[in-house]
Amino acid sequence: MKLEMICTGEEVLSGQIVDTNAAWFANVMMEQGIEVQRRITVGDRLEDLIAVFQERSLHADVILVNGGLGPTSDDLSAEAMAKAKGEPLVENLVWRQRLEDWFTRNGREMPLSNLKQALLPESAVMVDNPVGTACGFRVKLNRAWLFFTPGVPFELKEMVKGQFIPFLQQEYGVGAKVAVKKLLTIGHGESALADKLETLELPEGVTLGYRSSMPHIEIKIFARGDKAIGLLPRVTNHVRQVLGTAVVAEDRQSLAEEIHGRLNQSGFSLALAESCTGGLIASDLVAFSGSSSYLHHGLVTYSNESKVKVLGVSPQTLDDHGAVSIATVEEMALGARRLLDSDFALATSGIAGPDGGSEEKPVGTVALALATRGGVYSQMIKLPRRSRDLVRSLSAAVALDMLRRELLGEAVIVDYGSIGRYSK
Amino acid sequence: MKLEMICTGEEVLSGQIVDTNAAWFANVMMEQGIEVQRRITVGDRLEDLIAVFQERSLHADVILVNGGLGPTSDDLSAEAMAKAKGEPLVENLVWRQRLEDWFTRNGREMPLSNLKQALLPESAVMVDNPVGTACGFRVKLNRAWLFFTPGVPFELKEMVKGQFIPFLQQEYGVGAKVAVKKLLTIGHGESALADKLETLELPEGVTLGYRSSMPHIEIKIFARGDKAIGLLPRVTNHVRQVLGTAVVAEDRQSLAEEIHGRLNQSGFSLALAESCTGGLIASDLVAFSGSSSYLHHGLVTYSNESKVKVLGVSPQTLDDHGAVSIATVEEMALGARRLLDSDFALATSGIAGPDGGSEEKPVGTVALALATRGGVYSQMIKLPRRSRDLVRSLSAAVALDMLRRELLGEAVIVDYGSIGRYSK
Repeated sequence: MKLEMICTGEEVLSGQIVDTNAAWFANVMMEQGIEVQRRITVGDRLEDLIAVFQERSLHADVILVNGGLGPTSDDLSAEAMAKAKGEPLVENLVWRQRLEDWFTRNGREMPLSNLKQALLPESAVMVDNPVGTACGFRVKLNRAWLFFTPGVPFELKEMVKGQFIPFLQQEYGVGAKVAVKKLLTIGHGESALADKLETLELPEGVTLGYRSSMPHIEIKIFARGDKAIGLLPRVTNHVRQVLGTAVVAEDRQSLAEEIHGRLNQSGFSLALAESCTGGLIASDLVAFSGSSSYLHHGLVTYSNESKVKVLGVSPQTLDDHGAVSIATVEEMALGARRLLDSDFALATSGIAGPDGGSEEKPVGTVALALATRGGVYSQMIKLPRRSRDLVRSLSAAVALDMLRRELLGEAVIVDYGSIGRYSK
Repeated sequence: MKLEMICTGEEVLSGQIVDTNAAWFANVMMEQGIEVQRRITVGDRLEDLIAVFQERSLHADVILVNGGLGPTSDDLSAEAMAKAKGEPLVENLVWRQRLEDWFTRNGREMPLSNLKQALLPESAVMVDNPVGTACGFRVKLNRAWLFFTPGVPFELKEMVKGQFIPFLQQEYGVGAKVAVKKLLTIGHGESALADKLETLELPEGVTLGYRSSMPHIEIKIFARGDKAIGLLPRVTNHVRQVLGTAVVAEDRQSLAEEIHGRLNQSGFSLALAESCTGGLIASDLVAFSGSSSYLHHGLVTYSNESKVKVLGVSPQTLDDHGAVSIATVEEMALGARRLLDSDFALATSGIAGPDGGSEEKPVGTVALALATRGGVYSQMIKLPRRSRDLVRSLSAAVALDMLRRELLGEAVIVDYGSIGRYSK
């Protein structure tokens, strides 16, 4: 089964929006064990659409077409498909009724322009859209089924999951038996991870994929077929062993999500004292609903005065050791924890660059501390200085991992591949 | 001149990475007045690459090919191009020397695999890459020039700006006379902005584009040709007048960048007290190097205890009015400003959702305050409750705009289209 995707829309073609639908779709297909073999992006010109439908229908078995189903004059997918097949547009009475009901239910009169959304090519099979006014449809042309989906990401996702994947399973018997395990790593580049994992002998049906999402690389372990799926836990365990401290979460998007999951409703409370990360840790946690259950506060003490006044860092410590030092960051963590007697406090202070580095403390030097009810852990690390963003996001990740390891009762301070550490 | 783009690489096709190169390239071309007419994304299979090069060379005049120039076995662009044209790969001695010099300069021995990067199709014209080991090249096939560029975003950008655009200008005389003005807006959807601007009569050669970048919509005013460029300031002025308070910055990526630009080196200092925005404002400012020159601190006082203890908000105020109230947010701003006697302080407190709303204060209710040496401004706004992220980012944007307007000596509290406001 040869699958292709056609993305339509001037705003996608012209780069006004980045095509996240395409990446999402390819990803979901891969998790079903199906590869998208080619993706074509075209604008809103009728003749371009007709040409690309006709041309690709000679090469592919299934083509997911995304976008161009709206009510406005530049939404031309249905018209182009009808012309490509040489048949008229016909009003679909079922969908017209659905549209009218939808507007009645919302107490609004239906604009005439929406009637257009019920016009489908004569031979089209309607595909339900339970969450929007654009109905999907599919048309057979030459060797291909062209499957039309709305451009609104939420509607596309519903239709792919609810209609497109079942259609593939029924028509082509594919995609039924796939499982994926995702491991989130820090501190190693993609090629370093691949080198380490190359030695693993993977059972048939098991493959590895890598996805970079700064500051993480996500490793996906795909298993296709019953036998491979049965072996997935064992393979996952091997991968964990080979990678050691690099793996910081499983089936999570970020370390912040992992920490949020562990702290939310746990009864433990957290305070933050951020300097170089500048609110990044707080903001990443507050992004999750329910973070108020554990996050007492996050104090972005960017100036020395603020470190003294808000956190109670001693001016003498700042004078003797500087803001980026083990001594300062320990006092920051202790001070942040003490304020509301939180269970834990994390503190960061570092040189994010591009300016501000010195020979002794170059850009990428970051001091981190975790204060607990029992004491304080600290370390000073050397991060790759590729960009200010990378230094900040890696600092946040290592800090959050210190807390994660403490919550698990593991050693708080460990080595992570490419992240260096200053001896105390 | 018909321009297309071919993106290569399994990781782009399979959605493991979102193709930001494609969006960037289309955007830059549009600013040159050139449309990309089609974009094809293919994987790393040799036969797919050969087929797509041959096929598109019959339709386009210029094709930018991105990716596949690296040293590893899945980098096949040069080989595929040679096969598509029916000619051998030949070692380019100039580039081989450059590679050897590059490794010598960096004190490393050149791995043999890098030699591959000097092998170009026989008829290729080498294109310099001053920032990487992958040289670009261009080959004429059928009616098209295929122009090969590296996949590393930084290297692509250098090559497009330094080599590809000059090549287009020289060969096709295009792209020389275009100017763009970018206006950043908040508080209106794309269609509402378009409705407002539809009435404007634009002079010939001037067009409008929209780009959504939450919580902003960016309006681009393109002017093509001397006459249109001469009229650009006048058109920009008209657009500003029509949009009023919606325009919050010009030629900036975000309001944070605008505020950073105005505060950096100004001598004014800033403190932040964030609740619902949870470090977002601090983090967006700290993203810029030099923010330490004005940012005293950002206090993410997420719990009521922290508002009392760190900011000195009165427990009585919290009891009487609640955390999300004009009274509380004013005390937060005053408290944050007072701590280090900063010139300004911004405070936010709101209900980001999806939980935590009430009938009186539904999700999307946000209180904002700006404290200055002279007093305190405050307002309580109603934001669309589409998502937690949107509530947080719009809250941050309106807060930053209050400060921006104060710095300009304009009214601090104004209406923004779709953003509602509670009367005090």
